[in-house]
Amino acid sequence: MRLLFPLLLAAILVVATTGSEEEFLNQIHALQPRYGGGGTPVQGLSCLSWRLSVEAHNIIDWKTVPQACKDYVGHYMLGHQYRKDSEAVVDEALVYAQSLQLGGDGKDLWVFDIDETTLSNLPYYAKHGFGVEPYNSTLFNLWVDDGKAPALPESLKLYGKLLSLGLKVVFITGRPESQRNVTTKNLHKAGYHTWEKLILKESSYTGYTAVAYKSSERKMLEKDGYRIAGNIGDQWSDILGTYVGNRTFKLPDPMYYIS
Amino acid sequence: MRLLFPLLLAAILVVATTGSEEEFLNQIHALQPRYGGGGTPVQGLSCLSWRLSVEAHNIIDWKTVPQACKDYVGHYMLGHQYRKDSEAVVDEALVYAQSLQLGGDGKDLWVFDIDETTLSNLPYYAKHGFGVEPYNSTLFNLWVDDGKAPALPESLKLYGKLLSLGLKVVFITGRPESQRNVTTKNLHKAGYHTWEKLILKESSYTGYTAVAYKSSERKMLEKDGYRIAGNIGDQWSDILGTYVGNRTFKLPDPMYYIS
Repeated sequence: MRLLFPLLLAAILVVATTGSEEEFLNQIHALQPRYGGGGTPVQGLSCLSWRLSVEAHNIIDWKTVPQACKDYVGHYMLGHQYRKDSEAVVDEALVYAQSLQLGGDGKDLWVFDIDETTLSNLPYYAKHGFGVEPYNSTLFNLWVDDGKAPALPESLKLYGKLLSLGLKVVFITGRPESQRNVTTKNLHKAGYHTWEKLILKESSYTGYTAVAYKSSERKMLEKDGYRIAGNIGDQWSDILGTYVGNRTFKLPDPMYYIS
Repeated sequence: MRLLFPLLLAAILVVATTGSEEEFLNQIHALQPRYGGGGTPVQGLSCLSWRLSVEAHNIIDWKTVPQACKDYVGHYMLGHQYRKDSEAVVDEALVYAQSLQLGGDGKDLWVFDIDETTLSNLPYYAKHGFGVEPYNSTLFNLWVDDGKAPALPESLKLYGKLLSLGLKVVFITGRPESQRNVTTKNLHKAGYHTWEKLILKESSYTGYTAVAYKSSERKMLEKDGYRIAGNIGDQWSDILGTYVGNRTFKLPDPMYYIS
């Protein structure tokens, strides 16, 4: 059976072109070699397949980027594709946002995660293996405390347009309360000048997953009468759980996983 | 602000190489041209970005593949990448399945969707524009009634290993009850020789989404004492909703969307 599929694949081009079942049958053996042993999957890790599986949440709870994919992820993050992938997500979010009928009471919210969503830590990760190196909280917090993280331009564009549509913005980040001041300064410096709330992770959530912490904070927003129209983040833990919002958007992030 | 990010990107390679903040600052302007106007995203639809956004469930409720991506999707589906992407998902599913502690009472289930998961309709879609043409139920049902759909080889491999691990398999498909016989024959012909249940969509579910129908059927399985250890499908509607299972897996499908 495992052979039939590639044989059919091999024949498909002919069928697709001619639509002739006869030619389909006659061409199978002639075509098979063109597909490298009948389309047998190439062995070894495909970094593109790994990234797709990460973005579709098939690969979960991973600790670091596979060493074999360090250059792939680096080139992806520094090249056009990461930007184009982010743009495709934001364009879809804008189409959705523009279709919304707002309540007019200032209670329609859009939730943004911060790291790798609102702000980009790419300058840091570019110096630390693009996710191949294990997370180093000391070094990462030194970078955060510098307050120099740039905006992810596509998210800044979404932010501006959502505000102009009349939505309120709430940031929910896994950063601790102790980083409130530097985070506020960094947001302003990066071009984010107003928000309804900036929610950082209080020490009472220590030991809780991001899914639990963020779900709990979103629940409180809804209890306060807010309606979460949209929710965007680079981690599945930003958009899974409860009270996730009317629609969620997953920005690309092949550098790290937070559960 | 929109300029700072690409400028930083432009400088990152230097920083990444030398780790020198001074050089970082000094090189920004010199490096900028290397990034085509500072890394401004290339305009126009990126079919790779479109596919990623579809697989990550950012783009939803789409009717047909964008005309501009017909060749891209065709090459993807007929080439190695679709097979490698499917293999990456199945490999992850197997790592998970092998880690399971089964109850030993024959109640541990794995749920498979059928079309583009257990069986492949690629021979049909290759003759109908790889998803660019609007869905034609008459022509598609003629293809289904032929009962010649091959197995998706990666899913057949997963199926066999799950059975050998002691899991039971249940198929839940959006195909109607009227296609039970041909579906049963096709499954056997494709190499699927045993299953706990084959659940097709009864007429009572007419008008219900796939998410509602499949959630309802999974709930009944759990009520019957089964434990859904895993659930795999090519559509998000296979793995969203309720009683989705302990872990879900999304196979690639850039050809159509079912809500």
